[in-house]
Amino acid sequence: MSYLPIQQLLKTAPIGTTVTVKGWVRTKRESKNAVFIALNDGSTINNIQVVSEAGQLPEETLKLITTGSCLAITGQLVESQGAGQAVEVKISSVTIYGTADPEKYPLQPKRHSLEFLREIAHLRPRTNTFSAILRIRHALAFAVHQYFNDNGFYYLNTPIITASDAEGAGEMFRVTTLNATKPPLTEDGKVDYSQDFFGRETNLTVSGQLEGELGAMALGKIYTFGPTFRAENSNTTRHLAEFWMIEPEMAFFELEDNMNLAEDFLKTIIRYALQHCADDLAFLDNRLKEEEKTKKKEEQSELGLLEKLQFVISNDFVRLTYTEAIDILINSKPAKKGQFQYEVGWGVDLQSEHERYLVEKHFKKPVILTNYPREIKAFYMKQDTESAVGARGEVFGPTVRAMDVLFPGIGEIIGGSQREDDLDKLTARMHEVGIEPEALWWYLDTRRFGSAPHAGFGLGFERLVLFVTGMGNIRDVIPFPRAPKTAEF
Amino acid sequence: MSYLPIQQLLKTAPIGTTVTVKGWVRTKRESKNAVFIALNDGSTINNIQVVSEAGQLPEETLKLITTGSCLAITGQLVESQGAGQAVEVKISSVTIYGTADPEKYPLQPKRHSLEFLREIAHLRPRTNTFSAILRIRHALAFAVHQYFNDNGFYYLNTPIITASDAEGAGEMFRVTTLNATKPPLTEDGKVDYSQDFFGRETNLTVSGQLEGELGAMALGKIYTFGPTFRAENSNTTRHLAEFWMIEPEMAFFELEDNMNLAEDFLKTIIRYALQHCADDLAFLDNRLKEEEKTKKKEEQSELGLLEKLQFVISNDFVRLTYTEAIDILINSKPAKKGQFQYEVGWGVDLQSEHERYLVEKHFKKPVILTNYPREIKAFYMKQDTESAVGARGEVFGPTVRAMDVLFPGIGEIIGGSQREDDLDKLTARMHEVGIEPEALWWYLDTRRFGSAPHAGFGLGFERLVLFVTGMGNIRDVIPFPRAPKTAEF
Repeated sequence: MSYLPIQQLLKTAPIGTTVTVKGWVRTKRESKNAVFIALNDGSTINNIQVVSEAGQLPEETLKLITTGSCLAITGQLVESQGAGQAVEVKISSVTIYGTADPEKYPLQPKRHSLEFLREIAHLRPRTNTFSAILRIRHALAFAVHQYFNDNGFYYLNTPIITASDAEGAGEMFRVTTLNATKPPLTEDGKVDYSQDFFGRETNLTVSGQLEGELGAMALGKIYTFGPTFRAENSNTTRHLAEFWMIEPEMAFFELEDNMNLAEDFLKTIIRYALQHCADDLAFLDNRLKEEEKTKKKEEQSELGLLEKLQFVISNDFVRLTYTEAIDILINSKPAKKGQFQYEVGWGVDLQSEHERYLVEKHFKKPVILTNYPREIKAFYMKQDTESAVGARGEVFGPTVRAMDVLFPGIGEIIGGSQREDDLDKLTARMHEVGIEPEALWWYLDTRRFGSAPHAGFGLGFERLVLFVTGMGNIRDVIPFPRAPKTAEF
Repeated sequence: MSYLPIQQLLKTAPIGTTVTVKGWVRTKRESKNAVFIALNDGSTINNIQVVSEAGQLPEETLKLITTGSCLAITGQLVESQGAGQAVEVKISSVTIYGTADPEKYPLQPKRHSLEFLREIAHLRPRTNTFSAILRIRHALAFAVHQYFNDNGFYYLNTPIITASDAEGAGEMFRVTTLNATKPPLTEDGKVDYSQDFFGRETNLTVSGQLEGELGAMALGKIYTFGPTFRAENSNTTRHLAEFWMIEPEMAFFELEDNMNLAEDFLKTIIRYALQHCADDLAFLDNRLKEEEKTKKKEEQSELGLLEKLQFVISNDFVRLTYTEAIDILINSKPAKKGQFQYEVGWGVDLQSEHERYLVEKHFKKPVILTNYPREIKAFYMKQDTESAVGARGEVFGPTVRAMDVLFPGIGEIIGGSQREDDLDKLTARMHEVGIEPEALWWYLDTRRFGSAPHAGFGLGFERLVLFVTGMGNIRDVIPFPRAPKTAEF
């Protein structure tokens, strides 16, 4: 290539040589003797300072060099006289690729609200905050692929368009090519999907797990990493209609292997980000500190972003059963003072407030909860043969070999389980929850032929990016968020 | 983990130690003195041979050990006495995880047709051919991520659900949550999409390019790698309704940089597969040789699979303009003998027969064609300022800075271009081809603010997997193909 990305230029810094840099103007500052231009090409959060002597550039050129304009600059790389950067480029020539009318360009050098930037999601990657987030998102995605590749997993692209509802849960998006106004109908007035593209009703997948299990029962260890969809009408800071999921499935793994994998996986990925995104994380760490300052003292986080990430990778995750967690919650201060919004007792689905109490107040560490009540978990989870026993000897059950990994500030970041590998138990459970075994004949075939213990988990990628970037709204960690009434760009 | 994947076991081969292997029975063979079981766990195409002395295992256990059953075996790793393997495991104990009734299990140890295996896509990864394909697919995907990561590209997840038709081309799948039988209508009888989930009509993306350009104009170099969709009713060996696309976009790249990247990218990825998938490729190379033997002599390939891959990585791709290619085609034997089905002349869209003639007969090398007629290419391609000149001085035009990479047996494997970065030219072209500039206001903003030369290309991932595995049908290189009337699993 005929130019050097700024990231490489700053790393190698060939002082004294003539270099060409290309990028977008972040700021321009004029002093009596010189003009200083901060140029950024997106390869790093760091700008390169470009300097021209006063009067060197024609006035009409200088006028066009405004925030957002795009330049190619050739000049000598020299040690910088000013503070804030080690090197700078002394301009010998400038090409203006594209201007950015200051009257019209929305990204002026001032603080913009995240809400405003969401409306111009096509331009926000040109800001420090969003370019940092997207580079970190890239690094995390790469670390995911590298981790699984290093550990003998095969990447399996499970289908996006599916004729089955993986968990019998969640509202789905219909995929169709039928006439929208007047779809063909059957004699009894229903839509005649036999005339649709796939010859049946199809939806966007909510999970690749069931197909992932097919892969694991042939290749041993597989993972998926692709888009999944929920047509839930939730306008929250934690939900997207389209998000990326990571779902490993492993033959011969039992619950404990699954927990070991989940913990090692998360720590390795986060360690990778700390090692490879130091500048971007430092920027976001600082951003979060500034934001925290605007909060009341008692609402401020105890740990900064970098401290929180270091903390997660250097501590063992606490592992306990759902039954033990319920005991702790029942005996907790907030429960006794009636401060929980939702009541706690064996059998309830834990709410975010409960999960966060366990992680942030009680253990102050990431937590893995296991062996949940069967009734609040999916049909495919392996049924425990022993009952759960409470602190005072109470007998509870039935439970399943589920596991949820809970993180500070996020709550559930991973949900998984050992899978039911017994054909009869699995079929019986499907009948109980109202899923037709015939509809999943291919899934049951893995239990019919060469069944084996196996396990897996799912991780919403954006939840992980939220955690690592310290952002507060999930719409800010995916380039073009999809949510109710939101599909621009 | 409490067991060693067979791939690692064969690599490290700790002779004399006690090991536990887990996997599925491929074959069982009984001799007078011993029982030989070939076990495979999907980690490699190689089986581990497990041996028990005659009479060692109870008859009722032995009966359950059939093709497809799943076992855990503990025993001593010893040097093999037989031919065909270096080591084997002398059984000391067996656990049967899951049986596979020979009367019902579809995958018996005999040759199954690819057509039959397509109907049991949930089980076909348990065969040598499909496990090899899926491991190679994994390796290629990983190599893609590694290549871009090593070269300073950021992975950008462009949206799957989109309100825009990226190229104004291709039929799309509608995504909706409206009542299927009786959708809400506006006063003039059209579907009232304002009541749909996203408040507008939405479809599955056909390309992430336009959003990819937004990323490149902020982060410098980005790539997408995700599912894309075409609702075309084509039942061919080359088309899928759902397939994975790789789309890099680079700020400051012009046409030649784009060609250099495409060539280096393809060679690096293929070289990676040769280095990391030697056993699987050797198996498929052999499979193809056997298949070729069944063909007539004149229809057999000149090169075997491995030879073909070696050939691609060790030769420069031939680069020429569309105009030069047309000259060659007009003067070719098949044109003069009237053997082409479609006539050739400046301005026509090249057919597969023409592309394959150039690649397989004329140059016998991969070919990059550039500077295509504007009228047969997409609106966003950069317009050439000079006319094309034919061999006899004829003047042709207008042309655009497009490039297509043509591969033997595949035809177009990559299509790309430098992008039009001039706002006025781009807007004028959109009007000409009937695309409302207002609908793509955000796309045009990249030309309005800080425009720059940039380029990119698209690669259908399954086409690459087809090429590297030597398979003939694209439905055999994706785990669960989606095509007209095909959405099982």
